[in-house]
Amino acid sequence: MIKTLLLAGGVGGARFLRGLSAALPPDQLDVIVNTADDDTFHGLHVSPDVDTLLYTLAGKVDRTQGWGLRGDRFDTMDALAAFGEDVWFRLGNQDLATHLFRTAALQRGESLTEVTRRQREALGVSVRIRPMSDDRVRTIIHTPKGKLAFQEYLVRDRARSDVLKITYAGIRAAKPAPGILETIARADLILIAPSNPFVSIGPILALPGVRGAMRKTRAPIIAVSPLIGGRTVKGPADRMMRGLGFAANPSGLVSIYKGLLDGLLLDQKDQQHQRGLLADGLAVACLPILMNTAAKSRHVAKAALSMAAALRSQPRKAV
Amino acid sequence: MIKTLLLAGGVGGARFLRGLSAALPPDQLDVIVNTADDDTFHGLHVSPDVDTLLYTLAGKVDRTQGWGLRGDRFDTMDALAAFGEDVWFRLGNQDLATHLFRTAALQRGESLTEVTRRQREALGVSVRIRPMSDDRVRTIIHTPKGKLAFQEYLVRDRARSDVLKITYAGIRAAKPAPGILETIARADLILIAPSNPFVSIGPILALPGVRGAMRKTRAPIIAVSPLIGGRTVKGPADRMMRGLGFAANPSGLVSIYKGLLDGLLLDQKDQQHQRGLLADGLAVACLPILMNTAAKSRHVAKAALSMAAALRSQPRKAV
Repeated sequence: MIKTLLLAGGVGGARFLRGLSAALPPDQLDVIVNTADDDTFHGLHVSPDVDTLLYTLAGKVDRTQGWGLRGDRFDTMDALAAFGEDVWFRLGNQDLATHLFRTAALQRGESLTEVTRRQREALGVSVRIRPMSDDRVRTIIHTPKGKLAFQEYLVRDRARSDVLKITYAGIRAAKPAPGILETIARADLILIAPSNPFVSIGPILALPGVRGAMRKTRAPIIAVSPLIGGRTVKGPADRMMRGLGFAANPSGLVSIYKGLLDGLLLDQKDQQHQRGLLADGLAVACLPILMNTAAKSRHVAKAALSMAAALRSQPRKAV
Repeated sequence: MIKTLLLAGGVGGARFLRGLSAALPPDQLDVIVNTADDDTFHGLHVSPDVDTLLYTLAGKVDRTQGWGLRGDRFDTMDALAAFGEDVWFRLGNQDLATHLFRTAALQRGESLTEVTRRQREALGVSVRIRPMSDDRVRTIIHTPKGKLAFQEYLVRDRARSDVLKITYAGIRAAKPAPGILETIARADLILIAPSNPFVSIGPILALPGVRGAMRKTRAPIIAVSPLIGGRTVKGPADRMMRGLGFAANPSGLVSIYKGLLDGLLLDQKDQQHQRGLLADGLAVACLPILMNTAAKSRHVAKAALSMAAALRSQPRKAV
């Protein structure tokens, strides 16, 4: 039995996981999800990336936007707006149940790991999707106008600000969730989803012990690029890469993940970078990586698993 | 200017207040509302009586049931049920906004009085509806099977249990909300709504200082009976009266409010009790008190104000 571990953020992670979970039995697949963009809205603990993965695997996600629940309405938000509340982070009626359930459980003293387990059971999701930590970590976006919580930067301000620096408040005191380091150590294959390397994958890697466990593993580590022709499908990762001094291309991505990767899946539109990456010792596959259908998600997942099968007989490169 | 004060619970209080607020300018009317049946559901602070009064005066109440918002849907509750949560206290989508707003404000350190003020402003309710206390008081229903919180007794168990005793947990440590005792002392007329005398009016009267202030006032105190032909229109007050050793009739009501009343409005169907009450020195008016239309609410309110006008020139009887 080959144990596969996926590190994932929200929409990109969900699109890839949709294909991966179709290709692997659920007991061979673990997913560690970013929670550094969790935030509190109207007193409710919202875990956007966890929810996006759960809703996607449950077949309930709003496919057009990639997050939230299909067909959800916004009666509660509209009524909150009438009370003068700021409702730029709009939570649907049914989606609210997720946050009410989570918040009440956390207030009773349950861990985020435990709540997430109960939520995936209720949603019939058999893949072990787990939050990266039970402790609160917050991605802070430093802009010319000051610091913003990630959701303020992304949702409220629509990612319009320049990004000078990104920090993870609380990361030093945070512990990886129970079992996370063991799951990394025991994995036969580690995949990094095509999620934002700074705000989705970065916090997971920055947790004490995680990067060390990833460097020590003999399992190949393969990333799927979030770029297509040097641009992200969705979200500000490309602009963040440029703003933070990286090239917005696969070489820039490898620099961000420095010392970790054995393989990289690129989009065909970034094929010109393949030669340089191969020269660095990285395994590279070029294919269409836009995953806007379930079939395309499966195709990308299978390409990652094929590359892994080839790499597992070789010593790690960790480029 | 005649300052009128109403003590009220939920549905009966709202039906009477609807008429009273049509008959009086809002700056001459104060309402003190029971909060001893407040409870926490899914982590949210729910104040059923306050909300019923606010929704009624805002013209948004569900007229059929007398509480909740007209046309509200229950998507969030249905989704919570799918998570295995117990949703016997069903909160509508729009109604949830009220509880989210309140809970978040309380968690920020605002008082229930302050939150309620902001809610009535948002709803355009000019009558000063205030909670009886900013401290937590809980009505406990003692039954042969044990103690129940009031909403468990009423909503979950549909008031099926016999009632052995009613207590108000937290009442000794609770303070009347700021200004409440002063409002009682300054009132020219105090009205007691046709609400449950034990679980709606009882907790207000049991707050430290309230009964004393009521006894001291020179303003007439007039109650509207919640009984019609010895039965309540809604709710278990009649059975509670019998269970707790009172007659379920106007004389029983006067016993419960012992030492407070100057006048009582009865339903025509309870007219046989009028003579005994008059003999006790009480002012009595008999009229149809079912307030299932706005016109009937106004009629009952006007009868109470007429009785008050007659009583104000006389010394208090406090039967």
